[in-house]
Amino acid sequence: MTDAETTVGELSEGQVLRGILDRLPASTALIGPGDDAAVLAMPDGRVVATTDTLVHGPDFRLAWSSAFDLGYKSAAVNLADVAAMGARPVALLVALAMPDDTPVSFVRGLADGLAAACTDLAPGCAVEGGDLTVSDTLTIAVTALGSLDSRAPVRRSGARPGDAVHVIGELGVAARGLDVLFSRFTDAAGAPVPITEAARAALDATDAHALDRQLRPRPPIADALRAADAGATAMMDVSDGLALDATRLADASGVTIAFDSAALGDDPARALGGGEDHGFLVTFPAEASGPGLRVGTVRERGEAPVLVDERPWTGRAGWDPYRDWDAGRG
Amino acid sequence: MTDAETTVGELSEGQVLRGILDRLPASTALIGPGDDAAVLAMPDGRVVATTDTLVHGPDFRLAWSSAFDLGYKSAAVNLADVAAMGARPVALLVALAMPDDTPVSFVRGLADGLAAACTDLAPGCAVEGGDLTVSDTLTIAVTALGSLDSRAPVRRSGARPGDAVHVIGELGVAARGLDVLFSRFTDAAGAPVPITEAARAALDATDAHALDRQLRPRPPIADALRAADAGATAMMDVSDGLALDATRLADASGVTIAFDSAALGDDPARALGGGEDHGFLVTFPAEASGPGLRVGTVRERGEAPVLVDERPWTGRAGWDPYRDWDAGRG
Repeated sequence: MTDAETTVGELSEGQVLRGILDRLPASTALIGPGDDAAVLAMPDGRVVATTDTLVHGPDFRLAWSSAFDLGYKSAAVNLADVAAMGARPVALLVALAMPDDTPVSFVRGLADGLAAACTDLAPGCAVEGGDLTVSDTLTIAVTALGSLDSRAPVRRSGARPGDAVHVIGELGVAARGLDVLFSRFTDAAGAPVPITEAARAALDATDAHALDRQLRPRPPIADALRAADAGATAMMDVSDGLALDATRLADASGVTIAFDSAALGDDPARALGGGEDHGFLVTFPAEASGPGLRVGTVRERGEAPVLVDERPWTGRAGWDPYRDWDAGRG
Repeated sequence: MTDAETTVGELSEGQVLRGILDRLPASTALIGPGDDAAVLAMPDGRVVATTDTLVHGPDFRLAWSSAFDLGYKSAAVNLADVAAMGARPVALLVALAMPDDTPVSFVRGLADGLAAACTDLAPGCAVEGGDLTVSDTLTIAVTALGSLDSRAPVRRSGARPGDAVHVIGELGVAARGLDVLFSRFTDAAGAPVPITEAARAALDATDAHALDRQLRPRPPIADALRAADAGATAMMDVSDGLALDATRLADASGVTIAFDSAALGDDPARALGGGEDHGFLVTFPAEASGPGLRVGTVRERGEAPVLVDERPWTGRAGWDPYRDWDAGRG
């Protein structure tokens, strides 16, 4: 039997775990993996904590996402939530539930993706703990912890009338990537088909970029921290579509957010409605200059939480896993 | 339609979330649920973090465990891991993946169980964040965070020859509870059958207690913190059976642990081999007096990591989810 054919069901938990830990960045914790719990330094006496899960079916298809992609994405979406508070990601805890016929090579690819996301997006952040269990449904539940490094946390509720509204990162690109998947990588019955190297190479540059960002989101973590340092009054991760997330920020702050569609690129509808970009929606005092592109202005609260070119936003309201999930698999 | 029949698939994520948050203890965090991430005070500049997952099938059967039981157990096992480091549990993050036909009443029961475990075992600890997603397999991934409150963390590696070995909590009781489930609550084909009130009332007191502890473990969190304060040199949660966990502690410390079977109750084999008790294995300097029952002594490292009445332990080596899982469901 080749190594690639070995499944996790044939190994002990400890063996599977060692295969993961060996591929991860070195622990930066006071106490890293191997004890009942990790111990992490939080020099300013506060810790930022968030959790987000990827589930086979609603969140990914194995025909489309490699193990590396899944490791990368599961880390990236959590790193983004930590950074959205103005905190530097310090540690990930990874709870992995896998069918026992999962190849060990899959687990290695996942570990490599986790490691690459930490290295690319949040250097110094490492996987400091986790849990392995058996499940019929491949599930990757990641918790990310971060340090505010003496910054005030940047909440959703701090936007004030007159603030400038910025977006850090691309808009609508992940949604375009999803369109590429459904239009180019499905069979006649609509089922996902694997992405071959040849098919990927045949995509134009825009579609190839969108596909890459859909499968491996690159939240601009460092820019989010710069935004916090530049005096951001409110910030959040844009994961469910700009319009829906802006509605949440507007409601939390008791304001209206007015977007200028001309600032939203050449497909404003997709920029407003498409999810999974994992950029950041940020507000700054009018006199501040911060990272990102200015896309609108905070107003006194009116009837609508979000305006686009002065009209209430009425488009598709983003992604809700309980409403939008179809049961297709792949 | 009655409320009990409403499923999570008919509601938005926000509606399901509100049904959970309303039943949980009030947040004690600097920033609790509702933003991109929670912010928690860690006054001594360190945070203790662990994650553990319960998966339908390998970890529980719905015929046997109520939603309340699952909430209770998923919190308890994580609280135990935090306390095993000598830390006070401060917060839970709960990632819940559920089939979309899950009744909303189930989610409420789960929230009530989480709340009860916090109140019973770690007052002041609250659910400060989480994630909801759809899955074919009911999965409860909990992360627990704790504060050392200026204590040194108690590692597995600190046991020294001459130390006294204590156990805090009951031994073999959860395993007896598992035996009760398989012997009393299965049909002729071995499939789980629901536990009726009448059947539960017909159990003798010992079996009823064992069943309760199997379904709702009660790790003695406060005693673990007292052990840390009393100068414990090493400590760990006993989750996979005393002998296997003692092997891990002995290996981490480079010592041998010698048990006296007379101190292990009237069923030493079950005390040594049975998992899921979630008590604590602790070592103390010989001159210290700490909580728990003395069950043995730390020796210089010999050939065997664990001795029972001077003989190397050769019994069943505890629970490993990749080896011991049978695919039965219920």
